[in-house]
Amino acid sequence: MQDKKNDAPVESKAWSGRFSEPVAELVKRYTASVGFDHRLAAYDIQGSLAHAHMLQAAGILGAEDWAAIQRGLAMIEQEISDGRFKWSLDLEDVHLNIEKRLTDLIGDAGKRLHTGRSRNDQVATDIRLYLRASIDGLLELIRHAQLAFLDLAEKNADTIMPGFTHLQVAQPVTFGHHLMAYFEMLKRDADRLQDCRKRVNRLPLGAAALAGTSYPIDREMVAKELGFDGVCENSLDAVSDRDFAIEFASCAALIMTHLSRLSEELILWMSPRFGFISIADRFCTGSSIMPQKKNPDVPELIRGKTGRINGHLVALLTLMKSQPLAYNKDNQEDKEPLFDTVDTLANTLTILADMMTGITAKPEAMRAAAAQGFATATDLADYMVKKGLPFRDAHEVVALAVRHAETKGCDLSDLPLAELRGFSDLIEDDVFGVLTLEGSLNSRNHIGGTAPNQVRAAIGRARKLLG
Amino acid sequence: MQDKKNDAPVESKAWSGRFSEPVAELVKRYTASVGFDHRLAAYDIQGSLAHAHMLQAAGILGAEDWAAIQRGLAMIEQEISDGRFKWSLDLEDVHLNIEKRLTDLIGDAGKRLHTGRSRNDQVATDIRLYLRASIDGLLELIRHAQLAFLDLAEKNADTIMPGFTHLQVAQPVTFGHHLMAYFEMLKRDADRLQDCRKRVNRLPLGAAALAGTSYPIDREMVAKELGFDGVCENSLDAVSDRDFAIEFASCAALIMTHLSRLSEELILWMSPRFGFISIADRFCTGSSIMPQKKNPDVPELIRGKTGRINGHLVALLTLMKSQPLAYNKDNQEDKEPLFDTVDTLANTLTILADMMTGITAKPEAMRAAAAQGFATATDLADYMVKKGLPFRDAHEVVALAVRHAETKGCDLSDLPLAELRGFSDLIEDDVFGVLTLEGSLNSRNHIGGTAPNQVRAAIGRARKLLG
Amino acid sequence: MQDKKNDAPVESKAWSGRFSEPVAELVKRYTASVGFDHRLAAYDIQGSLAHAHMLQAAGILGAEDWAAIQRGLAMIEQEISDGRFKWSLDLEDVHLNIEKRLTDLIGDAGKRLHTGRSRNDQVATDIRLYLRASIDGLLELIRHAQLAFLDLAEKNADTIMPGFTHLQVAQPVTFGHHLMAYFEMLKRDADRLQDCRKRVNRLPLGAAALAGTSYPIDREMVAKELGFDGVCENSLDAVSDRDFAIEFASCAALIMTHLSRLSEELILWMSPRFGFISIADRFCTGSSIMPQKKNPDVPELIRGKTGRINGHLVALLTLMKSQPLAYNKDNQEDKEPLFDTVDTLANTLTILADMMTGITAKPEAMRAAAAQGFATATDLADYMVKKGLPFRDAHEVVALAVRHAETKGCDLSDLPLAELRGFSDLIEDDVFGVLTLEGSLNSRNHIGGTAPNQVRAAIGRARKLLG
Amino acid sequence: MQDKKNDAPVESKAWSGRFSEPVAELVKRYTASVGFDHRLAAYDIQGSLAHAHMLQAAGILGAEDWAAIQRGLAMIEQEISDGRFKWSLDLEDVHLNIEKRLTDLIGDAGKRLHTGRSRNDQVATDIRLYLRASIDGLLELIRHAQLAFLDLAEKNADTIMPGFTHLQVAQPVTFGHHLMAYFEMLKRDADRLQDCRKRVNRLPLGAAALAGTSYPIDREMVAKELGFDGVCENSLDAVSDRDFAIEFASCAALIMTHLSRLSEELILWMSPRFGFISIADRFCTGSSIMPQKKNPDVPELIRGKTGRINGHLVALLTLMKSQPLAYNKDNQEDKEPLFDTVDTLANTLTILADMMTGITAKPEAMRAAAAQGFATATDLADYMVKKGLPFRDAHEVVALAVRHAETKGCDLSDLPLAELRGFSDLIEDDVFGVLTLEGSLNSRNHIGGTAPNQVRAAIGRARKLLG
Repeated sequence: MQDKKNDAPVESKAWSGRFSEPVAELVKRYTASVGFDHRLAAYDIQGSLAHAHMLQAAGILGAEDWAAIQRGLAMIEQEISDGRFKWSLDLEDVHLNIEKRLTDLIGDAGKRLHTGRSRNDQVATDIRLYLRASIDGLLELIRHAQLAFLDLAEKNADTIMPGFTHLQVAQPVTFGHHLMAYFEMLKRDADRLQDCRKRVNRLPLGAAALAGTSYPIDREMVAKELGFDGVCENSLDAVSDRDFAIEFASCAALIMTHLSRLSEELILWMSPRFGFISIADRFCTGSSIMPQKKNPDVPELIRGKTGRINGHLVALLTLMKSQPLAYNKDNQEDKEPLFDTVDTLANTLTILADMMTGITAKPEAMRAAAAQGFATATDLADYMVKKGLPFRDAHEVVALAVRHAETKGCDLSDLPLAELRGFSDLIEDDVFGVLTLEGSLNSRNHIGGTAPNQVRAAIGRARKLLG
Repeated sequence: MQDKKNDAPVESKAWSGRFSEPVAELVKRYTASVGFDHRLAAYDIQGSLAHAHMLQAAGILGAEDWAAIQRGLAMIEQEISDGRFKWSLDLEDVHLNIEKRLTDLIGDAGKRLHTGRSRNDQVATDIRLYLRASIDGLLELIRHAQLAFLDLAEKNADTIMPGFTHLQVAQPVTFGHHLMAYFEMLKRDADRLQDCRKRVNRLPLGAAALAGTSYPIDREMVAKELGFDGVCENSLDAVSDRDFAIEFASCAALIMTHLSRLSEELILWMSPRFGFISIADRFCTGSSIMPQKKNPDVPELIRGKTGRINGHLVALLTLMKSQPLAYNKDNQEDKEPLFDTVDTLANTLTILADMMTGITAKPEAMRAAAAQGFATATDLADYMVKKGLPFRDAHEVVALAVRHAETKGCDLSDLPLAELRGFSDLIEDDVFGVLTLEGSLNSRNHIGGTAPNQVRAAIGRARKLLG
Repeated sequence: MQDKKNDAPVESKAWSGRFSEPVAELVKRYTASVGFDHRLAAYDIQGSLAHAHMLQAAGILGAEDWAAIQRGLAMIEQEISDGRFKWSLDLEDVHLNIEKRLTDLIGDAGKRLHTGRSRNDQVATDIRLYLRASIDGLLELIRHAQLAFLDLAEKNADTIMPGFTHLQVAQPVTFGHHLMAYFEMLKRDADRLQDCRKRVNRLPLGAAALAGTSYPIDREMVAKELGFDGVCENSLDAVSDRDFAIEFASCAALIMTHLSRLSEELILWMSPRFGFISIADRFCTGSSIMPQKKNPDVPELIRGKTGRINGHLVALLTLMKSQPLAYNKDNQEDKEPLFDTVDTLANTLTILADMMTGITAKPEAMRAAAAQGFATATDLADYMVKKGLPFRDAHEVVALAVRHAETKGCDLSDLPLAELRGFSDLIEDDVFGVLTLEGSLNSRNHIGGTAPNQVRAAIGRARKLLG
Repeated sequence: MQDKKNDAPVESKAWSGRFSEPVAELVKRYTASVGFDHRLAAYDIQGSLAHAHMLQAAGILGAEDWAAIQRGLAMIEQEISDGRFKWSLDLEDVHLNIEKRLTDLIGDAGKRLHTGRSRNDQVATDIRLYLRASIDGLLELIRHAQLAFLDLAEKNADTIMPGFTHLQVAQPVTFGHHLMAYFEMLKRDADRLQDCRKRVNRLPLGAAALAGTSYPIDREMVAKELGFDGVCENSLDAVSDRDFAIEFASCAALIMTHLSRLSEELILWMSPRFGFISIADRFCTGSSIMPQKKNPDVPELIRGKTGRINGHLVALLTLMKSQPLAYNKDNQEDKEPLFDTVDTLANTLTILADMMTGITAKPEAMRAAAAQGFATATDLADYMVKKGLPFRDAHEVVALAVRHAETKGCDLSDLPLAELRGFSDLIEDDVFGVLTLEGSLNSRNHIGGTAPNQVRAAIGRARKLLG
């Protein structure tokens, strides 16, 4: 493991060192981006190849130069993937590092590569290629996570647990039904990423510094070669737009918000006060002082990382606020939050998919909890409404019955018929069918409801959707 | 104008009053939402009508009750629009206020309306209806603003101005081209709202409190009647999801970010240091102390309101972080930021569209600024590249020529041919064609470039798109 | 209750109305601040009186004018407090409304009041006066809340509950000790507000528009009269600084963060899975569909309102980002987030102080929960360390013993001595003294520890601090 | 330069690699903190030494063990500073890495070091030591930056420039006066950091996991040895509190907000449209395509980095929202934003101090700009007020005179006396004294005003303050 280059000094002498550091060196470090943008290298090469190919097709670049550029970039790609490439802070960024090395390798042809483009449209192209690939990877990771939810939900389509509102027992649901709520969230998350991808997938190259170029370029050809859906239609916008980063960060913030809710629930469910689930040991840790502890570290970290992603979104919005057109150096600050957002999401979704397979329900504890708290009180109200009582009046009757059962320290279903009828003579012998947990569950038998057969149907539709 | 109900006291006696206020009253105010959610009234009635219609079709509600509910809700709608409706804090929210009034008006039928639903799914339905209508209105306002940009861009398709990067003169562009960058941003903004609308337009009703209901409801019928694209497929998700509010706030933050950039530019351009434009008086104000001032108040406020919208986005993300399912009272806090976001956007876009019609370019000042700063230096480099010099070498030559011209205090086009040839003998008599602003502009003649005919073509495509 | 003036229309015809609204009217509404800044009226009058007094003392204003201004402003103050004052949108803000009325009442003397000042320094003075009073009020409310914590902590200085880390049972603590953690947070919150107050309490008046004034003003006199600690020492800074609002919002965000943690815990503790406390009915509500529910609405709302305050902080930071000096109209946007932050804090702290008096501990449930989960395992480790075993080795021994007890389904204190000695022969008969909850508690007997006598000592110090 | 360990893969095969990675390895990377918390090593050792010393003094640790621990930690410190220390991911964090190495070096004594503490109070202590040292370093950097402002201000105490409000020329100020506004902001920033430091400088050690410890520890001794002002008075609060990080991040956000404003102004002033200053070449860069460009990269990056810091603040606030007590793993996420905030501030302030020495004013351009825009109109109004006209009437008169001068295309001071008297016969020959830029400046001669002698006095006070 290496120190990050900017580590703050740990002693006062290090701090005082700041005052004698040759500032030129600090300026170089402060303004250079190669420390983080080198990870765009493969996309930079990909973009350069498409650009050079077009220059050659348009007669701007000779066939020999084009061949040399292909050869040189292939060598550089190999050097980078072998870890032999020497990144230089003096060359500022990934673009100049590669271009310089190319010229070292192939001479003048390398100097011709930058014809008709600028770093402003080049970097915008690189990031979009990077982000598109990242979105595709993340979509696949979401799909994996969704499958893990489906498997666990299927196993627990009939597992009764209390449904909570306000963290109070409300009505019985099945654990499978509860898990499918997260499937729905991830479905929307995937949809949003797909929509975001459309707007990412536009080619800025050809905008040059800000105004376009005087060479007879063919932007559609480049777009096609790089798999873009089309070109950015205004050159000023092309180099100054960072919407894609912000929109992506917004999608990411929603994903993490969903996972923070799941994590909160996993932590609650694993607490001894709930005891609803166990999580496989490899996602938990012990304590340095309390030998008996088993802590849900992974869900806690996921919950915590929500902050990081919300922060990146705010960073990007603040960054772009009131910047005049076209390109300003501020924009260099778009990369670190974007990269960290992608990494955090990728790692989190990967772990999530696996962690879901390591979760085991404890049906007895869930059922016992559902049996407390008068979870079927609504069912009693509905029972009377079906016999003609207006809903609001039925609500009143049940409230009285609940208060009575509370005093007696028992559930509604434990009250004798005679006592129940004391609250309303609409109540008859068949009432006990609706007062059980199973009766309550099965009666919620419509699309979206918690009846086990509805849960299974939802899982079926979900599997079909994932293909 | 009225005091907001929660105004902080302006004197210490008012503060000390807090300590003797009967807390019950404060609790009521603190927890009630009718102070702001009454604006959902029309949507609440619309949703209730569809719900009651379905109950009747499903045989859960009698024909007479259905007729009474229709009659009663129509009366209430009228009372509200006449300002005669008495909103009561004791009845907490818009839903209970309307239901209570309905029962007062039509008796038991009113008490039956709430059959098979809960406030949890009811409020989610109301907000979605409200937000859908708001998005439709905003899309229309964006379209109006876009048309205003097109008109101004068309007038200025040939108006030369300096294109800036880093707020330094980079290359000449046309004012029309610059304005079209904002058209592109608004195009993406509209796209995003359309995508958001798809996810807003799903029916939560039928989820009841969190688990669905035991009545034989027909959710598809309600969805169809209310114009939803489909139903929320999981009841727990239906009542706890607030993605739509966050996604909408994200779209809003991007819109305001774009308008903050435009505002920044308008303020700069109207500053005497630029003097590029004038803004009609009705969007400006004077000073209480400096009689000569004409201040661009509206752009400044738009720029400032970006903060408000970013803040609402953060508020909503923070709100939902790590909430366990299903409904919690926290969610009541979604409304005020959402309402204020809609209002701010609607007012801002309305003013924007009009303000753009009140902007007049000052072509002489723009041209004079473009003539400074060696804006055509890139053109000289490109000129030599086309004669065979590698781009990087041409760049070097031009840098020397610029330094020379700077010393002489003149533009490149003012240097005699002989002096120019001192830097490279590739330079010949035809160089002066590319060194003029018009020559530079016209040469950027590809899709997205600033050549006036490309700008006109872009405007043409844009008009077609808006229909 | 009244509609907010900017209510979004609920029907499409209302939206289309936007396109025909005379924009001038919208511009007026968009730029005017009187709709919210009228609440500064008392401070505006207070500042005007001090300014006029100084003008008179400096010979800039005649004695008769000074008398007239005093008389006129007193009349206006009365009109406002009687609700008779007519606020006019055409007069933009609180300052012009009051000045215009003053001139109507007293003639030319009114026109002389604005001598040597500008709205830029006037509004900055008004907000600082408002914020100072608000901070003083909030400090008092925090003190009340702290006293409520102390009372509840004192009652529960011996009440054993499980201390959680990772929401797993860690070690026993007392409920009083747990509550005192919040006392500490509020203590820091009060400290921060005190520090913030120092920076709020500086006089901007005299900076005029941005550069000072040519009148021979006496800023120190005004500062003294208004109770400021001193004057802002640079006129450009005086009119453009909004640090005080941001710093205050930061303090507020921390307060709400603390209360969100408390709220989370109250909600957990009131959940039937914990059942550690009850909260008085007046802070809870029932359900529209589930008659048995008692929901902790107030804690949930407090938790949710954290989002609102974090949002306001972001709004203010975004607002000020990269604004050039000196005053810009953007700054008008500082007021609404500031006012809402003060109101939210004031209401929340008031309710909090009362709610804490409505909380009752359920000691049996707390104790039962503490008895689960091997809460005294650390004590066993410490026991062996004291007998000479290195801590890390003791930790290992206890882990084995816990695993054994887990298999047997009992607590460590339930294992016979012989079995315990199987893990280490350092364990002797006296071990059972440290394995009880009381033994564990009492042993943590140092400042900050959970031993009941330490909790009582902490409460004592706290009471002394509050005076 | 090294790849960050979490680099997202650049090719689809890398993404697909995720699905086959042994998850255990990813869990380890996901949960370990040693990758970033190793920078706390020196503070961890410092804290351990004080802890061990106290254990020895309290008779908990033998003299030999104490000697061995001192020796071992000294060796480890050396290994780390030599870069020979092997950090291991398997040992999770800086604490376990060091403790393990200590035990390897000195045997059982190493295992005794952790007696009476937990990682929960240990990490809280380390971060506070780190943050205290960072604050001290930053305070010194602020002082350096302030001195740079003073030097430049002193050089330009008489340099006339236009004072802007709304980016419109308002009144003349001096460049020195304008710069002193930033001195004031930095003064408040330093104050805030000092206040924050008080709350950072409290000792959590002794809180152990959450409840304190059963050893007879002496927390006051440890506090004294480590230079803390006192101990955290509640053990639960001690391990769960992260206020110091949030408060520090708030201070940082304000510093960056100030510097974003300065940067915005530097960028404007260096734009050819202003041409008010030049910035030394080493803080600027050229363009890859436009050879004539000189771009203010450093101010642009500073402006951009405001986003990063605001983001970190939001990350920390989101992190802590609604976490139940006491320690949760979420808290591990506090470090990266905190470290990056310190690094960004330290680098930015260092560069800033140097950059200010590289700024040269262009007084002619500034003066020419001040002469435009009727900057002395207020002075004319004040002139007439002093002759008895009510301010509001004078304001009206000047507005007419300005309109007249505008029509003639000249400044107020260019109008003949006769024409001026056409607007008011209070105007006499001496009016030309107040209509000049110097006259205007010199008249603002009170504390905080822009009169050059006031600016010099302010600089004098400032130098005295810095000592």
